[in-house]
Amino acid sequence: MPTSATPTKNDVLAARDRIRQYITQTPLMASSRLSEICGMDVKFKCENLQKSGSFKYRGASNAILALSDDEKKRGVATHSSGNHGSALAAVAQRLGVTATIVVPRGASAFKRRAIERYGGIIVDCSDTLDEREAKLAEVVGRSDAVFIPPYDDPAIIAGQGTVGLEIEQYGDAVDEVWVPVGGGGLAAGTVLACESAQVVGAEPELAGDAHQSLVAGERQPAMPPLTCADGLRTALGKLNFHLLQEYALPINLVGESEIIAAQKLLMSCLKLVIESSSAVPFAALMKYGAARTGSERVVIVLTGGNVNLDGL
Amino acid sequence: MPTSATPTKNDVLAARDRIRQYITQTPLMASSRLSEICGMDVKFKCENLQKSGSFKYRGASNAILALSDDEKKRGVATHSSGNHGSALAAVAQRLGVTATIVVPRGASAFKRRAIERYGGIIVDCSDTLDEREAKLAEVVGRSDAVFIPPYDDPAIIAGQGTVGLEIEQYGDAVDEVWVPVGGGGLAAGTVLACESAQVVGAEPELAGDAHQSLVAGERQPAMPPLTCADGLRTALGKLNFHLLQEYALPINLVGESEIIAAQKLLMSCLKLVIESSSAVPFAALMKYGAARTGSERVVIVLTGGNVNLDGL
Repeated sequence: MPTSATPTKNDVLAARDRIRQYITQTPLMASSRLSEICGMDVKFKCENLQKSGSFKYRGASNAILALSDDEKKRGVATHSSGNHGSALAAVAQRLGVTATIVVPRGASAFKRRAIERYGGIIVDCSDTLDEREAKLAEVVGRSDAVFIPPYDDPAIIAGQGTVGLEIEQYGDAVDEVWVPVGGGGLAAGTVLACESAQVVGAEPELAGDAHQSLVAGERQPAMPPLTCADGLRTALGKLNFHLLQEYALPINLVGESEIIAAQKLLMSCLKLVIESSSAVPFAALMKYGAARTGSERVVIVLTGGNVNLDGL
Repeated sequence: MPTSATPTKNDVLAARDRIRQYITQTPLMASSRLSEICGMDVKFKCENLQKSGSFKYRGASNAILALSDDEKKRGVATHSSGNHGSALAAVAQRLGVTATIVVPRGASAFKRRAIERYGGIIVDCSDTLDEREAKLAEVVGRSDAVFIPPYDDPAIIAGQGTVGLEIEQYGDAVDEVWVPVGGGGLAAGTVLACESAQVVGAEPELAGDAHQSLVAGERQPAMPPLTCADGLRTALGKLNFHLLQEYALPINLVGESEIIAAQKLLMSCLKLVIESSSAVPFAALMKYGAARTGSERVVIVLTGGNVNLDGL
């Protein structure tokens, strides 16, 4: 059920032009050993090297840049215990906009520090989603700030989709693009952006609500937040569900030990710091192989690199 | 006391042409936060992204490519408990040359696996330098293989120096190039390569023999192998000592906790996996600032990324 709010490829193209000078055109990296293991040419789109350390900077910059001057003066607000919060704070700081982030008390000190480093104003709330939303409504009511949702939003989806455009620009044809699915903003944007390549999703078994939703034909609730891939614990967004359903996105599930093994292997071969969430598609590719017979060139989006290294 | 074996800039230029198609032209990376911390423009030459995961691939490829066809048929050999061994094995495998690596029994399983992955033949020895050399002489005597030393060798020095040429090629003028000093091959090569930039060395206090050697005016023995920066535990090479003495290389010393803090900071901001040895120059730059008054653009060589992540 597409509505007037449903983004299209044109919105992704417009987002690309809007954010071009603000984001990093992240590199593609490869390792002959990883390609050998998978028996195909595998490359990695390094969004862990994106500003603020994740692809979330794309959506956040598109959303803020699309605001009127008047809206920018009012400031922006969101709720987030992860990369969307620090990305929004980072973009807002760059553009001279005030950002308020509602953060659950259970969120790590590491994530709070990232938001504070970018000048974001933190408002505490308890750990339930209801309380998060109530606290956000209070902040928005008080300050008249514009709510920038973490994933279920046309401007956010279009911004995340710009990563797909960059992948399709690389010289050689790409057969498949693999992304992790959490709230579904990146997957929905990539589906809009990529016309020639097959898009493939991957989820932890412990956070397989997008897979369940597509099988059941209706949106399923998020599972208990147990997976180590903490960026993927959120529920699938409504708009994203409809876009992924229309595309009939294949989603592969992997277990926790597979995710951890893939993360170590990727870090060791690519020499890149990546979050557990970023390792989920590679774990799935190792387990299941390419989605289409004959696919030889796969690009995996490494979504983020904000890992707490204090315990190193 | 330069001898006919002392390499010159021409040897570095010849090495560049010889190895160009075999090595990775590694990228320069930066982080606004790291530059802010140092109060200057700091960039990082990512040799952790070099083939086999360290700059050692440059020297090893120059040394093997300079051999005659007859010598290549005889194979190559070295002793190493670290990156030189795996780099030599990797280059040899690529060129169809047999590589035998004498490895002390105390070396980690992680390092042995890296050599084996590249098809290197491992010969065990005990942990003393005398025994290493005796075992290597035995291997060379038996197989007639060509010994490729880890750092104290003109072809190795010239190969490592190519990293300095790449740094000087970047558009903006670079004021200083900072490198860690272990055996001194990288430092000596960089000194030969860089004509406009000041080269600056850095060492752990616990492995400060190069600093002591330059102060004393004669080569001092290696210190007990206690520093966490395990790539820098070796003694300074003779040829390297003379080249660094002639250049009057400034060498800054840093403590163990400073190295570890710098490693975490670099990994966290750059999203790169780097060895402790690679963090030593940045630790020194944070501690002492630039070597010359007015230096505003510093490039630090991140020497390697071969970190054992099993414990992650």
